[in-house]
Amino acid sequence: MNKVEVCYSPSLYEFYENRDAIVVVTDVLRASSAIVTAFMNGVEKIIPVGTLEEAMAYKQKGFMVAAERDGIVRDFADFGNSPFNFTTERVKGKQIVYSTTNGTNAIHLASSGKQVLIGAYLNLGALADYIISKDCDLLVLCAGWKNKFNLEDTLLAGALAEKVLADRNFYTICDATLGAVDLYDMAKDNMMDYIEKVAQRHRLKKNNLDDVIAYCHTFDLTNLIPVLENDYLVAIKK
Amino acid sequence: MNKVEVCYSPSLYEFYENRDAIVVVTDVLRASSAIVTAFMNGVEKIIPVGTLEEAMAYKQKGFMVAAERDGIVRDFADFGNSPFNFTTERVKGKQIVYSTTNGTNAIHLASSGKQVLIGAYLNLGALADYIISKDCDLLVLCAGWKNKFNLEDTLLAGALAEKVLADRNFYTICDATLGAVDLYDMAKDNMMDYIEKVAQRHRLKKNNLDDVIAYCHTFDLTNLIPVLENDYLVAIKK
Repeated sequence: MNKVEVCYSPSLYEFYENRDAIVVVTDVLRASSAIVTAFMNGVEKIIPVGTLEEAMAYKQKGFMVAAERDGIVRDFADFGNSPFNFTTERVKGKQIVYSTTNGTNAIHLASSGKQVLIGAYLNLGALADYIISKDCDLLVLCAGWKNKFNLEDTLLAGALAEKVLADRNFYTICDATLGAVDLYDMAKDNMMDYIEKVAQRHRLKKNNLDDVIAYCHTFDLTNLIPVLENDYLVAIKK
Repeated sequence: MNKVEVCYSPSLYEFYENRDAIVVVTDVLRASSAIVTAFMNGVEKIIPVGTLEEAMAYKQKGFMVAAERDGIVRDFADFGNSPFNFTTERVKGKQIVYSTTNGTNAIHLASSGKQVLIGAYLNLGALADYIISKDCDLLVLCAGWKNKFNLEDTLLAGALAEKVLADRNFYTICDATLGAVDLYDMAKDNMMDYIEKVAQRHRLKKNNLDDVIAYCHTFDLTNLIPVLENDYLVAIKK
């Protein structure tokens, strides 16, 4: 039997760390949705970096760079982190460096796991099918907001856990997983109404960046799953 | 306006720390319920200690000591952490040293706040009334389980936040608070059924310690509120 756990913050990761687990990193608003979108639009490789200094160094080497902090694009960057920035024209066949407030740090932490995948609603069904087919433990790592709990990542974790737990080879005794599933079940029939109240919606709205919220909560637009290989993300080859 | 926040783990406390807030520490199963019970039964003072070494040192000085780890009473201790151990015969007029797996560490952390209170269902209404009367920020610190999220403390946090937020001088933009309130609302009509699934119930059951669960979820048995003064807990004088 494979266990399912959810970790609500990168700062709690050490207590959930599991080298036998596939770790799914999620940062629904907006990093993981943007990364999945980039692969949908043909990006070849994404290099996640933790600090703006690293991103700047890559820029000086000629890489295309997406970088922001607190929802504001950095002036040295080519563009920011809205999924809508990762258009086919810009990203097809390219390697892109990506630095965000919460998401990239979580990806680096998760690399102690057996495999690191990027999870969004956009690829939720494919993700669940893949994990079930791999028949191993699942740990969902919510990127959160500056190490605090956030609702939008928790709901995604609940949605994914519920799908995987429907398979009889998976179980959970993790309170964070049970809580996430219950919150998702409460929210799922009116997701946009529920998301109205989350703190990140208010942050994005303040910067006129909330146009992406409905898109980031669209289910199953793709079967592509970004996976960490060495230090960069590529799409899993089927 | 006063803000309400909930912190799901002592390991996240640094991100929520608020020197202007009353911090309510909760460890429903069982430390905070036991502490409230001790005051109901006339204890004079409780000295919370973080390590077993400290507890042992107090024992050698002649103090009565309650100490356990993972639900098992330590052999040097007078008794363990079940609320049922803190009988009037044992505790009335006494000073007791108390060391637990999760609770006492959380109390020490919380001492950076304006005031530290101990919260349980047993004193929930009194606690909410007191906080509203003080007209300042509220931070609920869930003791959790070895730094992981747990449901029983989260539900208590939700119950308390909901009561306080009903007063128009309080607001929240904290996702953890919104999540806790929603989980509490989902659970409250069948609390015992909901608690069936939490991990801590299974841990207690394994050690035949689950006899306290219904008691620890009894509302408003007392108006007593334990408060941290210097390094020990006393009941708030009305």
